[in-house]
Order: sequence, then C-alpha cells, then structure tokens
Amino acid sequence: MENTVYLETAVTLAQQAGDIIRSRFGGDFERGFKSGPSDLVTEVDRQAEDLITTGLRAKFPAHTVIGEENDSTAGGQEPGDDYTWYVDPLDGTTNFVYGIPFCCVSIGLSYHGRLTVGVVYDPLRRELFTAELGRGTCLNGRPVRVDETRKYLSDALLVTGYPSDKNYGGRLSGLNYQKIIASCNNLRALGSAALELAYISCGRLTGIWENTLMSWDVAAGSLLVAEAGGRVTDLAGNPLELRRYLSIAASNGFIHNELLQSLS
Amino acid sequence: MENTVYLETAVTLAQQAGDIIRSRFGGDFERGFKSGPSDLVTEVDRQAEDLITTGLRAKFPAHTVIGEENDSTAGGQEPGDDYTWYVDPLDGTTNFVYGIPFCCVSIGLSYHGRLTVGVVYDPLRRELFTAELGRGTCLNGRPVRVDETRKYLSDALLVTGYPSDKNYGGRLSGLNYQKIIASCNNLRALGSAALELAYISCGRLTGIWENTLMSWDVAAGSLLVAEAGGRVTDLAGNPLELRRYLSIAASNGFIHNELLQSLS
Repeated sequence: MENTVYLETAVTLAQQAGDIIRSRFGGDFERGFKSGPSDLVTEVDRQAEDLITTGLRAKFPAHTVIGEENDSTAGGQEPGDDYTWYVDPLDGTTNFVYGIPFCCVSIGLSYHGRLTVGVVYDPLRRELFTAELGRGTCLNGRPVRVDETRKYLSDALLVTGYPSDKNYGGRLSGLNYQKIIASCNNLRALGSAALELAYISCGRLTGIWENTLMSWDVAAGSLLVAEAGGRVTDLAGNPLELRRYLSIAASNGFIHNELLQSLS
Repeated sequence: MENTVYLETAVTLAQQAGDIIRSRFGGDFERGFKSGPSDLVTEVDRQAEDLITTGLRAKFPAHTVIGEENDSTAGGQEPGDDYTWYVDPLDGTTNFVYGIPFCCVSIGLSYHGRLTVGVVYDPLRRELFTAELGRGTCLNGRPVRVDETRKYLSDALLVTGYPSDKNYGGRLSGLNYQKIIASCNNLRALGSAALELAYISCGRLTGIWENTLMSWDVAAGSLLVAEAGGRVTDLAGNPLELRRYLSIAASNGFIHNELLQSLS
C-alpha cells in the first residue's frame, strides 16, 4: 500500500523530468564535461535532477536521495538506512547529446537495502516501465515478462556497455570478449543501462552484462527485471548489492548461468 | 533531373514498405530462419521486399534489382551494367524480431557502378534520409551534414556490428578491438548498418566500421554519408566497391584516418 504512494510519486516525477528531456532532445543546449568527454553533463541533466530530487525531498523529507549530479548531498547516509532513492535523471546522456534517441529517466527506491519500487521512463517513445516488489512489472500499465522462449545463450540477444571513462583499466575489462560474442545470437550496445534493463524486462533483450556502473544506473532497472521473472546478479553470480560502483549481469534467467560462464 | 524521378520512386516505395513494418512492429508474425538464427527472415521482410522489387521492376523494367530476399533474381547481371538498385527492405531484422525500435528500409541506385540515389527510411520514427549525387543529403527534406565539430577519434561516438553468422571466423574479425575501443569517446552497436550510416550523415554518430556486410546494406547509406560531407572507404582506405560481401569504414571525414589506423 505504502509502496504505491512511492511508485505514484516516482512516476509523476519521471514523467515531468521526461517532458524536459523530450522538449530539448535534438536541440542546442549548454554542454559541460564531468569526469570525461563521454560523460557529458547537460543543462537538461541538471534540470531533470533538480526536479526529481526537490520533489522527493519535499514529499519524503526523511528519505535519503542518491543522484548522479548531487551525490554529495546524500549527506553521508549510507544505503540500507530506511528508505533510499536512487535517481538517474538522464541515463544515456551521451546518446542525448549526440542525438541518438535512446535515453531514459530512472528512479528506484530501496527499503533497508531491498529494492521496492522501480520506474524507468523513455520520454522519446513515451514508454513507462514500473515495478513494485512482489507485484510484477508493467509497461504503460500492462504486465510484461522477460523473454521465456530463448533458453540458451546461442539464441540470446545480449547487450553491454563500455565505461565512460576511457582510462578505466581496459574498457573490455579483462572479460573474454571474443568468447562471449561468439556464444550469443548477437550483441548490442545501446548506451543506456537503465533502459536496456527495462528492455530485458519486456523481452526485447535477453541479457546484459556491464562493469563500472553506479547504483543509480541499475536500481530501478534491476527491480524491473526481477519482478518480470528474470535474474539479476553481479558478475560473480552473487546477489546485486547497490554499491557506488558495481558490475551487473541480468537476464531472462534461463541463460543466466551460461552468460556468467561465458564471461568468466 | 532523371535522378529525381528515381529518388521519388524510391521514397514512395520506402514509405510504403515502412508502413508494413510499422504496422507489424511489436506484433506476432511468422518467423523463419535464413543462414543463421541471427538472420531472422520474417513475413514482413518478404512483404516489404516484394512491394519494393515489384514497384521498381514495373517502373524501370530495364534496371537490375539486387535485394536481400531474392538475390538470385538479379538474373546474373552484375553491378556496373547501367542502373542497379540495391534493396534492403528491412535492415535490422533481428532488432525488429526482438522488438528493439531501430530498423529501416534502404534503397540505393547506382549507374555504371557509381551511387546516384540513396534512401533510408526509419518507419518507427518516420525519419526519411535522402541523397542525390551532387545535391547533398536531407532528413525529412531538410539538409543535414556530418558532425564537423568532432575532429579527433577521442571525441568520436563510433558504432559497429557483428556478423549475423556466428560461425564467421571470429566475429571480432581479427581487428584490434581493445585498441579501437580505448581510442574513441564510446562505442555503440545499434543493429542496423543502413540506419547507422544515416545517423552519421546527420551527425548523431561520428564513424562506423563493419565487416561482412552486403552491398544492399550500405549502398544507400554510403551515399548519404558522402553527400553529407563525410568519407566512405573499405577498411584498407580504398574506395568502397559494391561487392556482394564487403567491409566498410565511414565517418565525418575528420576522424577517418585515425579510425583506419586504429583498426589496423
């Protein structure tokens, strides 16, 4: 019951932030550089973050809000203390900046470290993915499931991404890239981990692996996948912990062990 | 003048084929397997091909038509004889089958081996990319140019794809993948070479390389890039020849030599 209030708030804020993103997509805007040129912070990014963060703090002043742009404002509180919101106001910033129409707003909520609400909103296609713990995943209000027809890695359409920091010790991260790419149906790199997780939850992709993501990149999306019948772990096969930096493997479940083995 | 008639015909047929694709996207349809499971031929694919091929043959009976589905009907005529149409009725078939909204219709025309008309149509976003030799490239009727702001590979958003046949001798094709991925801003794999070339022509991507494509995958898109101010070669830096199997590097021009060097 209470989760429903949280979900409704997250949906409203995601849609409002999405309106900002949609209205500015393809246009000119002030550009900024964060840790590297891949990680372009735009005016839009900051506006969307402010909108969501302000909205959450006004409504739930006791909650912790962890976001990409104002991570430091988390005030030293650690995830696991009561309610923690994970906000990525514009996942796929590089896509947005270059004009590739694949980006989203991602808002997740955990309670004592356990994900309870997840919202991923694609403002360009107006696709709203929502999940509540124990209540399944919906796309624009209709229940969706992971792809349950593809049971082997050889049939899987996988997706991955490369750290935005090109100096990160080897963007292929020591993984056996040749092995994994030879094992699957094919591989994509679409540029937004949160939206890629949402695509897994509705069967458009079969699995994802990625290194060096942040908690706010995957919080909402991993609940979408889990509630849609899929499986989410770290690359060692352990339960995902929402640490600041993390690795993730998520899939329809059927291919999960094969995926982890191919990555090892 | 004459090219304009060809362009108008190609646009009409691409839009009609696009209507078929759009109306069936996300739905159920009969699936078939071609050379491998990545290369799913759908009913939609065949319908769109029939529509385009029939339309071109009715209007230009003396022209050769080379298409993905009925390649053999080219009747032994080789590209280079007068007018040759290169038709990919649904580039990004795997995306279409899985439900990833990134696919297109691609129609190119060459005259004595030289590309003269190119049309790439994204039916899901209703984006029409057109080019005529010597007259530039347009997106929905408005002139576009390649990205002229990013002059170095380190700023480039690159894209690539992997052969649909997973048995093709190493999908990474002996390229120095680690080197190229460490050299660019970031890398995508969006799943439709024709639409990726169109994205280069309007500055959304900076460069592409790919192995093992077919002439109909790249004919239209490579004219889009060239007429938008970019550069198109094979991976050795030679002019692109529209052979059955080919490799391609295309870019905004500025990064082209750096791209080729990183791939060698």
